[in-house]
Amino acid sequence: MKKIRIAIAGYGNLGRGVESAVHHAEDMELVGVFTRRNPASLHTQTGVPAYKMEDVPSMAEGIDVMILCGGSANDLPTQTPELAQYCNVLDSFDTHAKIPEHFANVDKAAKEAGHLALISVGWDPGLFSLNRCYGQAVLPQGADYTFWGKGVSQGHSDAIRRIPGVADARQYTIPVDAALEQVRAGEAPVLTTRQKHTRECFVVAEDGADTAAIENAIKTMPNYFDEYDTTVHFISQEELDRDHKGIPHGGVVFRTGVTGLEGENRHVIEYKLTLDSNPEFTSSVLTAYARAAYRLHEEGQTGCKTVLDIAPAYLHPKSGEELRASLL
Amino acid sequence: MKKIRIAIAGYGNLGRGVESAVHHAEDMELVGVFTRRNPASLHTQTGVPAYKMEDVPSMAEGIDVMILCGGSANDLPTQTPELAQYCNVLDSFDTHAKIPEHFANVDKAAKEAGHLALISVGWDPGLFSLNRCYGQAVLPQGADYTFWGKGVSQGHSDAIRRIPGVADARQYTIPVDAALEQVRAGEAPVLTTRQKHTRECFVVAEDGADTAAIENAIKTMPNYFDEYDTTVHFISQEELDRDHKGIPHGGVVFRTGVTGLEGENRHVIEYKLTLDSNPEFTSSVLTAYARAAYRLHEEGQTGCKTVLDIAPAYLHPKSGEELRASLL
Repeated sequence: MKKIRIAIAGYGNLGRGVESAVHHAEDMELVGVFTRRNPASLHTQTGVPAYKMEDVPSMAEGIDVMILCGGSANDLPTQTPELAQYCNVLDSFDTHAKIPEHFANVDKAAKEAGHLALISVGWDPGLFSLNRCYGQAVLPQGADYTFWGKGVSQGHSDAIRRIPGVADARQYTIPVDAALEQVRAGEAPVLTTRQKHTRECFVVAEDGADTAAIENAIKTMPNYFDEYDTTVHFISQEELDRDHKGIPHGGVVFRTGVTGLEGENRHVIEYKLTLDSNPEFTSSVLTAYARAAYRLHEEGQTGCKTVLDIAPAYLHPKSGEELRASLL
Repeated sequence: MKKIRIAIAGYGNLGRGVESAVHHAEDMELVGVFTRRNPASLHTQTGVPAYKMEDVPSMAEGIDVMILCGGSANDLPTQTPELAQYCNVLDSFDTHAKIPEHFANVDKAAKEAGHLALISVGWDPGLFSLNRCYGQAVLPQGADYTFWGKGVSQGHSDAIRRIPGVADARQYTIPVDAALEQVRAGEAPVLTTRQKHTRECFVVAEDGADTAAIENAIKTMPNYFDEYDTTVHFISQEELDRDHKGIPHGGVVFRTGVTGLEGENRHVIEYKLTLDSNPEFTSSVLTAYARAAYRLHEEGQTGCKTVLDIAPAYLHPKSGEELRASLL
């Protein structure tokens, strides 16, 4: 069997996760990692070679799908449409408000070049989006809820680190149990931001820093913290490194709704993720969808798609016949 | 906007559920109910007309999708391929072991007639199957678990009713909390049938019946009860009618697995349904997939498909552009 030839663009946490996922996939092989750093400085986990990003055009013939592992703020808006000129591409673009614009740019580039592109692949956007779609379709008279956590928010951790006097920080987003239970019971509550999540911060202060001022700066920070009940713990760098090194995350998507002529019966659909490693799980989703991108392109499809456009069977290594016999 | 013209074949709990779901769907209209009973004897909830099953061929021009609401044991194996000759069809065939055979029969009939057929639509098979597929694809190194309940099993209730001396009965399948918690914690346990579910039976005995003999007959019944811890309660017909009239069901599909080069990170995916009415929820799934069947046929697709072959966006009334802006 011909293996699907995967390449990685960008070698951070996400790139390393894809490297590992492809390493374990029997129907895939990893061609190489493309980087804007000096390739000689990059030591991959599996020994797969690293190349300069500028080498993509000349090597594209040997790549079935390029998985982009850069960031949504600065990398993907330009990188995904650019690389779609050379090969099929896949990204995890997660700036929700800018997805329509990104889709249009990538769609144009991919269609012109005859390639297939899949954007916003991961768990949110991604698997959570699927569940919102299925949930709304099956229970049209109902309500949507998304809770995130317990998990590390990199954006909020970074925001704390920018406060004067802060040496390091880690922020956890935590869903409020009482709110989860209300939704789970089918009560369809209306919940404020504060009622849905709390925020817990572990902060390493610089020597002599004013911890009261730091705590106040965190709790009153607009958009990030002011609408939440926030707890701040000051700990040592050793404690932070020892107890808060992981990047766990997760969350729950609910669709609750009624059926019956008079809406007399209630139903709750709950989709819950509990993840030890946020980037590695995202990488695993990307790798499964790379299989779909390859197959769709083999069928002659081009342009940009999202997870909402992909039938589940395309993600699975087994044939349709095997899936019907074993999974239905 | 042209509405999708839906017809129902068979008017039991499932048929009534579809009638209600279509009634609430803005992009659909219900053409009629087809029955093997005398149509004049059938009083529909919404006043939609009833027709003889023999009228399908002459009325098929006015039907976009026929939703079959018969049983898997006796109706669907012959009905689905037969009706696929006349229009696009959809069924909830749920005899897991016979799905490949049913698929082949329906596929042949639908392809010959140029229609689209969707089989085994519901929640298991159906939404649970989707989650098994997504879960295995995203976490290839892992384990699958399906728990059913708490809910009424019609098959087990019927089996109890066939015991001499039993006037009526209702059986609940209940997942074992300790097993759920082990799976949820990512422990990947190996579980026996007995460790996963218990069975609780509410039985109305005939006057003078030997309740000890009935209880023994239930608990030792091969396949149905002998491998489970079973509790039997004898109650009056009034109590059964008052407290056990509903048809709740539900269940959980888990995929647990590891990522990382050495499998060092654990992840748990949990998909849980809590349903007040098993048939009405199944009807709602059928109705959403009827939209997909219509759209796929409009695109020129024919033959038999299952939920694994359908991209999520096809189920949702909104356009791809609206979905990308609101759901991703």
